[in-house]
Formats: sequence, C-alpha cells, structure tokens
Amino acid sequence: MVNETQQSCSASSSSRSDGGSSSGSESSKDNSRCSTPVLDADRHERLREKMRRRQEAGDKWFSLEFFPPRTANAAVNLISRFDRMGAGGPLFIDVTWHPAGDPGSDKETSSMIIANTAVNYCGLETILHMTCCNQTKDDITGHLQKAKRLGLKNIMALRGDPAGEEWEEEVDGFNHAVDLVKHIRSEFDDYFDICVAGYPKGHPEAESYEADLKHLKEKVFAGADFIITQLFFRPETFLKFMKDCQAIGITCPIIPGIFPIQGYHSLRQLVKLSKLEVPQEIKDVIEPIKDNDAAIRNYGVELAVSMCRELLDSGMVHGLHFYTLNREVATTEVLKRLGLWKEDPRRPLPWAVSAHPKRRVEDVRPIFWASRPKSYIYRTQEWDDFPNGRWGNSSSPAFGELKDYYLFYLKSKSPREELLKMWGEELTGEESVFEVFTCYITGEPNRNGHRVTCMPWNDDPLATETNLLKDQLEKVNRRGILTINSQPNINGKPSTDPIVGWGPSGGYVFQKAYLEFFASSEIVTALLKVLKKYELRVNYHIVNVKGQNITNAPDLQPNAVTWGIFPGREIIQPTVVDPVSFLYWKDEAFALWIEQWAKLYEEESPSRMIIQYIHDNYYLVNLVDNDFPLENCLWQVVDDTFELLN
Amino acid sequence: MVNETQQSCSASSSSRSDGGSSSGSESSKDNSRCSTPVLDADRHERLREKMRRRQEAGDKWFSLEFFPPRTANAAVNLISRFDRMGAGGPLFIDVTWHPAGDPGSDKETSSMIIANTAVNYCGLETILHMTCCNQTKDDITGHLQKAKRLGLKNIMALRGDPAGEEWEEEVDGFNHAVDLVKHIRSEFDDYFDICVAGYPKGHPEAESYEADLKHLKEKVFAGADFIITQLFFRPETFLKFMKDCQAIGITCPIIPGIFPIQGYHSLRQLVKLSKLEVPQEIKDVIEPIKDNDAAIRNYGVELAVSMCRELLDSGMVHGLHFYTLNREVATTEVLKRLGLWKEDPRRPLPWAVSAHPKRRVEDVRPIFWASRPKSYIYRTQEWDDFPNGRWGNSSSPAFGELKDYYLFYLKSKSPREELLKMWGEELTGEESVFEVFTCYITGEPNRNGHRVTCMPWNDDPLATETNLLKDQLEKVNRRGILTINSQPNINGKPSTDPIVGWGPSGGYVFQKAYLEFFASSEIVTALLKVLKKYELRVNYHIVNVKGQNITNAPDLQPNAVTWGIFPGREIIQPTVVDPVSFLYWKDEAFALWIEQWAKLYEEESPSRMIIQYIHDNYYLVNLVDNDFPLENCLWQVVDDTFELLN
Repeated sequence: MVNETQQSCSASSSSRSDGGSSSGSESSKDNSRCSTPVLDADRHERLREKMRRRQEAGDKWFSLEFFPPRTANAAVNLISRFDRMGAGGPLFIDVTWHPAGDPGSDKETSSMIIANTAVNYCGLETILHMTCCNQTKDDITGHLQKAKRLGLKNIMALRGDPAGEEWEEEVDGFNHAVDLVKHIRSEFDDYFDICVAGYPKGHPEAESYEADLKHLKEKVFAGADFIITQLFFRPETFLKFMKDCQAIGITCPIIPGIFPIQGYHSLRQLVKLSKLEVPQEIKDVIEPIKDNDAAIRNYGVELAVSMCRELLDSGMVHGLHFYTLNREVATTEVLKRLGLWKEDPRRPLPWAVSAHPKRRVEDVRPIFWASRPKSYIYRTQEWDDFPNGRWGNSSSPAFGELKDYYLFYLKSKSPREELLKMWGEELTGEESVFEVFTCYITGEPNRNGHRVTCMPWNDDPLATETNLLKDQLEKVNRRGILTINSQPNINGKPSTDPIVGWGPSGGYVFQKAYLEFFASSEIVTALLKVLKKYELRVNYHIVNVKGQNITNAPDLQPNAVTWGIFPGREIIQPTVVDPVSFLYWKDEAFALWIEQWAKLYEEESPSRMIIQYIHDNYYLVNLVDNDFPLENCLWQVVDDTFELLN
Repeated sequence: MVNETQQSCSASSSSRSDGGSSSGSESSKDNSRCSTPVLDADRHERLREKMRRRQEAGDKWFSLEFFPPRTANAAVNLISRFDRMGAGGPLFIDVTWHPAGDPGSDKETSSMIIANTAVNYCGLETILHMTCCNQTKDDITGHLQKAKRLGLKNIMALRGDPAGEEWEEEVDGFNHAVDLVKHIRSEFDDYFDICVAGYPKGHPEAESYEADLKHLKEKVFAGADFIITQLFFRPETFLKFMKDCQAIGITCPIIPGIFPIQGYHSLRQLVKLSKLEVPQEIKDVIEPIKDNDAAIRNYGVELAVSMCRELLDSGMVHGLHFYTLNREVATTEVLKRLGLWKEDPRRPLPWAVSAHPKRRVEDVRPIFWASRPKSYIYRTQEWDDFPNGRWGNSSSPAFGELKDYYLFYLKSKSPREELLKMWGEELTGEESVFEVFTCYITGEPNRNGHRVTCMPWNDDPLATETNLLKDQLEKVNRRGILTINSQPNINGKPSTDPIVGWGPSGGYVFQKAYLEFFASSEIVTALLKVLKKYELRVNYHIVNVKGQNITNAPDLQPNAVTWGIFPGREIIQPTVVDPVSFLYWKDEAFALWIEQWAKLYEEESPSRMIIQYIHDNYYLVNLVDNDFPLENCLWQVVDDTFELLN
C-alpha cells in the first residue's frame, strides 16, 4: 500500500498469479477430446485453494500490488510490466481502487479495466480492490457485478477514505470494511474470494491495537478468506501481530505486505499517508544518502531481503506481498535474491493462457495470432463458451471486429517518431519495406542507425524459437518474402525443453514447420508452380486483401501444427492452422499495413502510396510442411521459387 | 484449386446430407477437437455418391450378395465370412429377403438381423432386400422403420414371389416393385438409397423384353438410384441390355450381376428358380464333369473372369456384383484374378469402424475391447450420439449389460469339444492355465497336440503386431502373467506401414507400449513395489473382481495410447486407456473366465474350481509406458517383479 488510497483504509492486498495461469478448469475433460484441459491443477482452484496447496506443499510464493496509471500511455506501459513481471510467477497481482479516479468506469486507466486487462489479456490471477465508504449499495453491487462479468474473482474489501473531515457513520450504510465483506457474501454468496487489510501496528484511527485486532476478527468472521497487511519495517512487528491474531482465533492466511524502499521521497510520502513511524535505524541510514536514488534503492533491497528471509525462516510465513509502486527493478531484485522469482516458469500451453474463468477450457488457438495474443483474446471475448476448447461452431466462429481499443493499445506502444525511425521516414520503393523486415529479423540497425524492435504484426519481441530460423528468415525477407510468423519443425523434444517445451513434465512436444508471409503476385505465381511439386507434403493458403483464396487444404479442416504427448493424458494440440479463422486474420493482417504503417505518412505521399500498393496487391501466404520428422522443406520451396523467377 | 471464398460466408460446405441418415452430419468437425471425423470421406456419403465418385475416379469396384443362413451356427460362420470378405474391400454387400423365413424378425438368422450385423459389427455398407407382394403397407413401413433404426440406409426394392399360383393384383396394394419404390419415397423421402432389379433377358413373367424395360424405367423414375441385374451367361447379353436401357432414357448406374458357377447342382437350382436358359456351350463343358466339384469351380472361375474382363474392357461397366451363394473361394478367386481384391485395404482407424450412420463420428475407443470390437459395439449401441467421438459424459458412459446375444455369438464360434481340446479336458492347477495362455501366444500345440487358436478374450486371431512381442509374451505367460492385450510402442512409423499403419497416406502413427494381463495377488504385490521405481514413467490400473482398484493415473483422465499425425488434419487419437471404461471392461473380462471357460467343466469339478479360484483371486492389470520414444520398459518391469519374487 503505497499509493494514496491505502492510507486510510487499507493496506492493500495481495495477490498472486502463476505467471499466466489460473482460473479454473476442471470439467473440461467432458467436452474435450484429444486434449487435457486439466493441464495445471491450479487452474481450476480458487485463490484461497491455491494458497492452501502452496502452503501444504511447502512452496513459498509472492504477489505484487499495482495502482492504476494516470494516462493511457502509462496504462500501456503497465500492461507490458504485467507481462514481464508475470513471467516471474506471482501467485496473484492486485490493483488498487481510487474513488476519485472513477475506478469502476470503462476508461482504459480505471482500476476495473486495468484489472480486466491483467486477468484476460495477461492471464494473471488478480484481486481488485474496492472501497465502500460514501457509496450506495447499488453502486457497490454494480461494481461487483461488472467485476464478475469481466472474469474477476477476487475482491480486496476496504473502507476507503471518508470524503471530508466531517465524516460520520451512516446507519445501514457502509461504514467499515466489514460492511462490504458482509454485502459481498450476502449478494454474491461464495463467488468471490475476499481479502481484507490487517494493520500490524493497529489502524491509525483505531482506539487501540487490541480494538483493531477485534475489527479484523469481525472482518474474517464476516467471510474474508485471507488478510494482507499494511507495510511494516521490522519483521518482529509482523510476527507479533500474527501471533496476536492467532491468539484471538484468526486462523486464515495472513500475508505480510513488503515495501522495498525505492527512494527518499516515495518513502516520506508513504509514511505520511499511512501514519507510520520510520524506525530511527532506517532514518539514520537514509538521511545521509537521500539524494542518491541508487544508493537508497540498494539499501532498500538489502533491507527487504533480510526482512523477508527472517519472515520466511520463522516458518509462519508462506507468501510475501510486494508493494511495487508500479516499478519493476527493486521488487524483481528482492525476489531474485530470495529465489522466489521463477526464471523459467513452465508454460502450461505454448501460448499465454487467459485467466478468465470462461476461457479456462480453451486449449486450441489458430497460429495466426501467435504474435498478437491480446488481439485474439480481444476479438474472441464475446465467445460465451469453448465447448471444443475453442469455439462452438467452426464454420461460424464469430470473431469480433477490430476496434479502437486494440488499435489504441498497439499504437501507443511506440510513439510515431519512434516508429518512423524504425520503419523509415521516407520509403523509396518496395525494397525499403523489404529492408525493414530484414532489420527486424536480424536485429541490425537500419541505414539510419536505428534498430527495428517491433513490427505492426508483432505484440511481442521475436520469439526465442524464431532465432532457430534467423538465417533463413533474413535471406528470404531480403528478397521480398516478408515473414510475419514462423515456427521450426520439432520432432519430439522433451516438454521441459527451455525453448520449445510446454505442458507437464515427462512429455514430448512436436511441431510442423510453419511460415507465413506477404509476397507480391509475381512471387506467388512462381510459388504456386513450385508448390505443385510438394502437393502431398505442403499445405498452403494464399489470399489477397480482396479475399481471393487459393489453397490445397481439405475443405475447412484445421491442420494441427503444435501438439504434445504427456504421461497419463490425452493428446494436446494447442495450435492449428485453421482455414476459417485465417480469413479473419487476413483482414487484421492487411489492415495493419494501413493502420499501423501507411498512416504514419502524409496522405498522397510516396511512402504512403508504397504501403498502400503492397496492401492492395500483395498476397498473404501460409505454408505448413506436414513431414515434421524430416528436414523442413519450406526453405527449399522458397529457393525453388526464386530460382524459377530468375 | 482456386476458390473465391468470401470470408463471411463461412458456410461450410459440402453438406452431403444423407437425408436423415445423420442429421448434423457435416458438422461433425464442429464437435471434434483433435480428431478428424472426416477420416474417410466416403463414410458419410450415400452409396449412390460413392458409386459416382468411384466411377469418376476410374476406380473399379465390386459388391457381394449373401442370403440369410438357416441356423444360428451358420449365422456365426457367415459373420466371420463377412469379416474375411470385407477385408477385400467390397463397395457394399447385400442380404436377400425371404418372406417365408420371417425376414424382419429379431431372430439371429433373419435378413434384418444379418444386415444389422453386417452394418454395425462388421462395418460393411449394406443393402437390405425387401419384397412387397402379399404384404400390408403397415408391415412394409414397420420393416423400413426398423431398418432405419438399426442404421441400414439402402434398400433393394423387389416384388417377390407371389404366394401361391392364384396370385392376383390387389387394388392399392403392392403389386410391383415400383409400388414399393414409391412407398419408400413417399414415407421416407430421400432417406434410403434404393436399388432395383434389372433383367438382361427380360423378366420371365413380362409380356416382352421391351415391356420389361418400360417397367424398369418406371422403377427408376419412381425414385430408384441404381440397378443390379439378374445373372446372365454372356457379356453381350448385359452390354445389349445396358444400351437398350440408355436408349429409353435410363441413366442411373446399372451393375451386372455375376454368378461364378460353383457346382452342378447349385447351377441347376438357380437356373430353375430364375427361369434362365444355360447356353449350350456351357452345358457342353459342365455335363461331362458334373461330379467333379473342383473342376466345375475352376471352369466357373475361368468363365467369370473372362466375362468380367470383357465387361470392364467395354468401358461401360464400373462395378461388378457377385452372387456368392454364401461361399468364399470362387468369388475371392475371381476378384483376385481381376485385381479387384484389395490385398491391403487401408485402415481409416486402427480398429474396425462401424457403418451405422450415428457412429460415423466415432473416433476414440478404449483399448480394452481391442480384441473384442463386436462386444464394444454391442455394449455401446444405445449411445445416441458421439459428441466427443465417444460418449457425452466420460464419467457416466452408460455401457450396456453383457447380454445373451453377445455371449451366444462367442460361445457358438467353437463347439465345446473343440474348446476343451484347446483349453484342457482337465486342469491340474494354475500352471495348466499358464500353459494354455502360452500355447495361444506361441502357436505351438499343447501337451495333447492341439493348437490353441482362440481364447475367451479374443474375438479375432492374434494381431499381426502382437507377433512383434511374441518372445517376451511367451516368457511372461509361462510364469503366470496371463496376457490378454498388448501393443508395442511405435515412434512415428509411416501411416502406410503394413503392420501398424492406419489413416490417410503421408501421415505418421505412434503408440505407447501397452500390456494387460491377469496375475495372482502375490505377483501384484511384488509388481506394486517395482512400479514405485517407474512412478513417473508407467501408468497402471490394477483391479480385482470385487472392484478393488489401485492406480497412479490422474483422476479419471484417459491416457492416449495410439495417435496419428496427418497432412492437413487435426490429430487423431483413436485409442485410449480410460479409467472409467476400464471398470466396465473389468466386469466383462472377469465374467469371461466363468462364462467361457469354467462352465466347460462339471460343477464342483477340480478344473472348474481352478478357474473359479483365478476368477476370485487374480487381478486384472494394465500398464502403459509413457516414454514412447524410448525402448519399451514394461518387460523390465515384469522382470524386476519376478526377480523380487525370487
């Protein structure tokens, strides 16, 4: 709790996420065939169950607190941070609630929407804070219903700051966090996991430490599942508090809130808000170095590590909750030094799983969105269920339209000037475009000395496995095979392989080689001649922006291109080349030329006309080499094509 | 192929609606995940479509006619013949209808039940004959409804022989085959494919050849889909007939009925019934050798081959229909000499697919019934649909009881005396039983000089792939690991592999090693200790007759043990080890000890008590080695077990 809200009412909360898993999924076996939906047993448990299991397994965990950003740009950055910090394997994250900031609205910076993004797009188990004072029952219920609809399953119930000095308790109103707990349980039964705040030194407004403990007990007995504490500076503060809680009959998990000191000013502000006293021994260290941010942060990390070690060593603490202040470095450093940061979290599936409960049975996706998973989730958010692990009716998958939300998200990732530096202030012909693609693959600076770190078709940096294909990709991009997606063939690597592995241990993963690119009609004409030689081996789909579609695939049948075989399980095939969704992807892939690239330039400018020309005349091609045990033949196909052209 | 596809019109396609035969048929892919229900495009096409496709592809075919047997024993033999002759790849078989023999009843020898067996248990496309004279509309409709219910989709509409000499046409009754054709079309719309009979020499009762052609045209115009002709002796008879048909506007397929002469008496009888004249040149050959069956058959084969060649060479004939007289040798010989017999028909799945329309999406089965597929089909015949390629709810698959029909089928396969010779007139202890199992595996004669060619758990002869494991199986059976099912591990053999291949060309098939056996509790105790060492690698289920169940498998999850990867397809996993159905199989497997074996002996006899003891005290064990790319470890598991016991 380090932001302004918490001061009064709460501390903050806790959360955790298993790096992208979570949300449940048990019954999927009933409507699943070759797939084992119960990939990760955690996924269909409640947060409180996950905590219990981790504790029983003696497996320490951590969670991360964030506050909603103030601007759309900051929101985009925060989402990237969720992805990066999610990779370390938090049990959950939580998002604070600021009544003044319209926290339940649909603005991209609201608490509700940030929590929604964390759950649905980043796949993080998430707790949404909610305060209750000065609000009507209807408001609160409305927020909770919305949270439930969005797939949120955990609430941190707080009182919040009374508006104005003259605040008085309202009869039948929400005067304390316990009223909110009771309201949630009465209106939503056991749907939400509920967290409440604990104050190791007692709430500053409480009559006494003992009185505050009694309030805490009331909150727990009203239905809270676990407690996250306000920050504190000495481990013995927490350990005493915990014993005192237990002594009066509080048996639920109590998670210490850890605040790694990151700077002089943020500490001062926090202390002021939370009305805490900084111990003299800490002040003594900090005052002399107050203008040296790095030194303070190093000290803060040191201090946090040593406090966390003491807490963990006590045997009473199983999880640690971090007040990140939306920053990455200090918390990540503490976690790494504690050995809690999962360097290589096992992926349950080769793509990031969404944490929305209704998506918990999802285990098949088209390969096309591999580099734009958030777009895929966004465009399929209206799917009410996943009876076959994907959609109910493959002939009518009902993809949502490409709308502003997602384009906003991508657009704001890099400012226009950055993009122009990467993709060219001025294009001189199609070859300038070839060069951009080539630089993205190689990582070499372009002719103006700028590295191309993103492309319109890629949310994420180049996948590690793409490096396996780097040399060939460079060669073909240089000649106008503009690749946007690819995977090497894999013939039975262990599921624990650091690059291509996924799924439970002891299994084997497989892939068919895949290559997707834009190319001119001249290249496509030659390619089609060449493909005749590979008719039985290579499946292709070739389509232009108008929808002219050339394929040798059996009518509408998906081709499985990634699958895994695991001990005691059915076969999992999480990625397919699906002819139906390819036509939806085609619209998106072509639109990105214009939306993301052409529009960087003036209308009627030569640069814009070059991109427009490509958009209007190039084809989008995908190729699958079905003979996964043999050497990938797709490079030979491309070589043959160029040979034919010469 | 270039198709202009509108993305929005994902209207999938090809609905080759089988008129009712399976409502939602095309959509099978919709409720399929890793499986390609459209394995064999033929399977959800109508017979008339199959004919058309074969003709378009220039692919000659044949079909086989049988009559219902007179006794239950003969029925069992005929079913075995269906399996053997089905292996040659007929496009369909047909079963004749004998009004005097109660053809629509539930007797195991009725036309209806024989056709039912051919479709459902032997997986053969089947035409049921039906005659109409002297029958009420209600009777006929009842027969047709029953046929539809049983999964029959094709009817040969015939008039039948009037009862008695004094037959007169009834007003509004069924006087001619055309009335039956009209009735079927009016009552069942386009559900059935309808075949009618053609007479190359004219029907013997017709006023003239021309008048008969007119009747035939009426039948076709009333809704018949194709014509099968009465037998004839000279190719020119058929070719003239066909031209005459075409001349009056009959355009549907006309299939010549071929009768290989197999003996003097059968020829005489047939000629008498059909009122045909045997050409003098044939009589001249046959009369002198009329007592030499082999010589007549050789001549008949010769004659049929030469006539068939002439017909095929004419370019007008695409399929040949054989009157088998329920015999195998002559027809098979003719077909082999014509090159129409498929020596190695490609298996669409590793097990025999049922031809019932509602089972056409079935593509997953438990491995347990691998040697008793007819029992599995029988016990699951009530399943109304296969939403996941098997059953709707894996936790409650609702297997039918083991009932008389199936036990009858197996029991009557070999008479009691035969079984006693194979399995022992008198058992002296459990070791005598070990010996029976061992002899079955090795093929060596037992101590009394008899080969053990079948076992209670095996419908079919030992599978070819079992030979790959023969030496190890012999060794373990000798020591009391009484194996009833096994498969070797396979790591990516071509789908065209003659032993383990299945599915479309160009694919790869895989298996996990599997071993299933009965063993004493002493062996099982040691085995369980050994299995601890293999905990992560080997999944096991161990159960006794009382249902005491020991397993390390994840709760209720099936383990895929056979799967295939094919060009342009989703993954197919046709065989699983399923913990739920294993408990149903357990009941069947234990019951077979008593029903098939113990009951051969007198009550209270020592032999019977030995089998009863095994039934009461042994365990049924199955083991899966999940590490399919490594050498099968199950033999090591068994060796370790015996070592521990010593």
